[in-house]
Amino acid sequence: MHIHDLIRSIREPNSTRIVLLVADGLGGLPIEPGGPTELEAAQTPNLDRLAAEGTVGLSIPVAPGITPGSGPGHLGLFGYDPLEHPIGRGVLEALGIGVEVGPRDVAIRGNFCTIDAQGRITDRRAGRIPTETCVQLVQKLRAIRIEGVETLVEPVKDYRFVVRFRGDGLGDQVGDTDPGRTGEPALDPHAAAGDPASAKTAQIAAEFLRQARQILQNDHPANFATLRGFARLPDIRSFAEVYGLNAAAIAVYPMYRGLARLVGMTILEPGSTLANQMEALKANWDQFDFFFIHYKYTDSTGEDGQFAKKVEVIEALDRELPKIVALKPDVLIVTGDHSTPSRLRSHSWHPVPLLLWAPETVRPDPVTRFGERPCLQGGLGQILAKHIMPLAMAHARRLGKFGA
Amino acid sequence: MHIHDLIRSIREPNSTRIVLLVADGLGGLPIEPGGPTELEAAQTPNLDRLAAEGTVGLSIPVAPGITPGSGPGHLGLFGYDPLEHPIGRGVLEALGIGVEVGPRDVAIRGNFCTIDAQGRITDRRAGRIPTETCVQLVQKLRAIRIEGVETLVEPVKDYRFVVRFRGDGLGDQVGDTDPGRTGEPALDPHAAAGDPASAKTAQIAAEFLRQARQILQNDHPANFATLRGFARLPDIRSFAEVYGLNAAAIAVYPMYRGLARLVGMTILEPGSTLANQMEALKANWDQFDFFFIHYKYTDSTGEDGQFAKKVEVIEALDRELPKIVALKPDVLIVTGDHSTPSRLRSHSWHPVPLLLWAPETVRPDPVTRFGERPCLQGGLGQILAKHIMPLAMAHARRLGKFGA
Repeated sequence: MHIHDLIRSIREPNSTRIVLLVADGLGGLPIEPGGPTELEAAQTPNLDRLAAEGTVGLSIPVAPGITPGSGPGHLGLFGYDPLEHPIGRGVLEALGIGVEVGPRDVAIRGNFCTIDAQGRITDRRAGRIPTETCVQLVQKLRAIRIEGVETLVEPVKDYRFVVRFRGDGLGDQVGDTDPGRTGEPALDPHAAAGDPASAKTAQIAAEFLRQARQILQNDHPANFATLRGFARLPDIRSFAEVYGLNAAAIAVYPMYRGLARLVGMTILEPGSTLANQMEALKANWDQFDFFFIHYKYTDSTGEDGQFAKKVEVIEALDRELPKIVALKPDVLIVTGDHSTPSRLRSHSWHPVPLLLWAPETVRPDPVTRFGERPCLQGGLGQILAKHIMPLAMAHARRLGKFGA
Repeated sequence: MHIHDLIRSIREPNSTRIVLLVADGLGGLPIEPGGPTELEAAQTPNLDRLAAEGTVGLSIPVAPGITPGSGPGHLGLFGYDPLEHPIGRGVLEALGIGVEVGPRDVAIRGNFCTIDAQGRITDRRAGRIPTETCVQLVQKLRAIRIEGVETLVEPVKDYRFVVRFRGDGLGDQVGDTDPGRTGEPALDPHAAAGDPASAKTAQIAAEFLRQARQILQNDHPANFATLRGFARLPDIRSFAEVYGLNAAAIAVYPMYRGLARLVGMTILEPGSTLANQMEALKANWDQFDFFFIHYKYTDSTGEDGQFAKKVEVIEALDRELPKIVALKPDVLIVTGDHSTPSRLRSHSWHPVPLLLWAPETVRPDPVTRFGERPCLQGGLGQILAKHIMPLAMAHARRLGKFGA
């Protein structure tokens, strides 16, 4: 039996509230041998108090050794096995810039490129045109009209853009048109054999590219485009279907709002600061029974290799925590979607510190500090991220007994 | 998505090197209550230093409670789920004596037996004839000729031998001919219904047994033979296919060379001592990016119930370790394929101490000694053996990000 079917069969209504606070890229590494990690170096009196009162452990985002992007990282935290639910590149790119992807849509990554008179690609990135040029060219591409399908084009950054086809019966098993090297013409969009839905998408994509070539012919170096990562929305049960929770997302950045929308959460509109997010939490406290709060800066400072800055943003997060506790959630979880050690300047596979606070039901462990080393001694052990949501449901007294 | 498909899709070339040092049967038990295990009793300054600098944990070979043989034990360490890839008995027996098994082969275990005038088996092991007799009788069986198939017969030990049929279109779904008790005639080789490839093998086996009966008729007590464990090579992706690694095996004993060959490793030819193995490692350092080194004596001393001797061979292994470290591997893993506590005189299911040393990427833990108890406090926790290879790949910086 799939764990989601089990949860559906044993879940029970309750008025309890769960808060999942995701500090993106929370886990780290010592910057020098024997030293503390970013989280261990930070002064975090509030997290430490929650760790002492609650229980801690480490979350393995996907599987040992696997470094996730934001998509698989968050799916895991939402309780979906990331290996069961791959999210296509086109969908992730669209979500990342705030383009909604619905069940009738195919989302695609576009690259402006340069072709010569014979149609051979001479630069796959069109000389890395600046974003302003990209915006102008995308504006031109919006003139494209294709019968039977609604077309949306949005700029991303530099030479990159997103295309979304919306229509009936569109498949996504269509190959990239970027040949992967210069000196060759772009490929035609090619659908998987015996897949009429994808053949329809391929035909639409071919027409899109035909019109694009005409429109862009005098825009050297960006005189053509390639399409990659054709993707439909993954076939995924909503958060409400699996958990029976009425969930809200309080996230500033488009990618995380998109991921929350993907599982059917309501997207709240906070301002851009953490304090704004806390206000949104308080203002909506009575309307929902699950809140996903996303905090970006633990990841971005890690990506930039700024150890001291990552320590600071962890401390800033810690200072806001009492506002969550004051609302008296029944279950509060603090963790990250993956590690982003400033030492590595990138996402990593290292397990992520995990804190579960639930005053009524938690079995305490001896840990009184929130950090990578203390969490090794915690009561939760090292668990896959997908196991956190069932634990949250249990501590929220929303799961009955399995079997008699 | 299978983890191997994920790894194939995210792996990245690198010039890093991984060493997997397998001390066969490494894990142990205290010989008396409250005492140390073999590993804990051993003086291991080099392993302890690596434990202090790296991270440790425990490896569960197959699943909790499951005691593996060498085959499943090593498959797990190579990153293959042993439950997904059962290796047939005939193949294991052949590998164990250095008989190569290729894709056109069926390997079979043979037993000499005694039959009476009516063809009924009176001794299923032919009075446990000595190995020298077995060698002579196998020599006679080499006269067997069967059209369309190449036949190889090799002695194993006592009354046991191996047969290998090499030919086109041979299946391995053929039942044992040993009836399992005396007083009955041997069974005919019987193929699974609707499986023409196995029917072909059964026909060949029947002809083999017909000729064997004729040849052996005057060799009482070994006047006939039974065949068991018909097996083809398991359908398994090579190490190169899964990991993109150019891997070499430095193993003295045939079984481990055979298991390494099974996943496509190159088999190096060291002399018979650990020092020879270290020389082979150094001599081939530039030719490969993965080295599997197999050390047998931690298992054989455990099987013999020699606690003190097992301590000694662990100390001997420890003394050679600096030679590996001097080569500056990017990732060094030390563990066993299973436990072989001298107290039990056999393989066991107990988790195996696991050490991962990777100077650039490891997240340190508080453990400074390599032993069963200290490993309980380690950063790796208790993980399935099959998860070690993805971790090694990650620490070798050979895996990119999963999803955006």
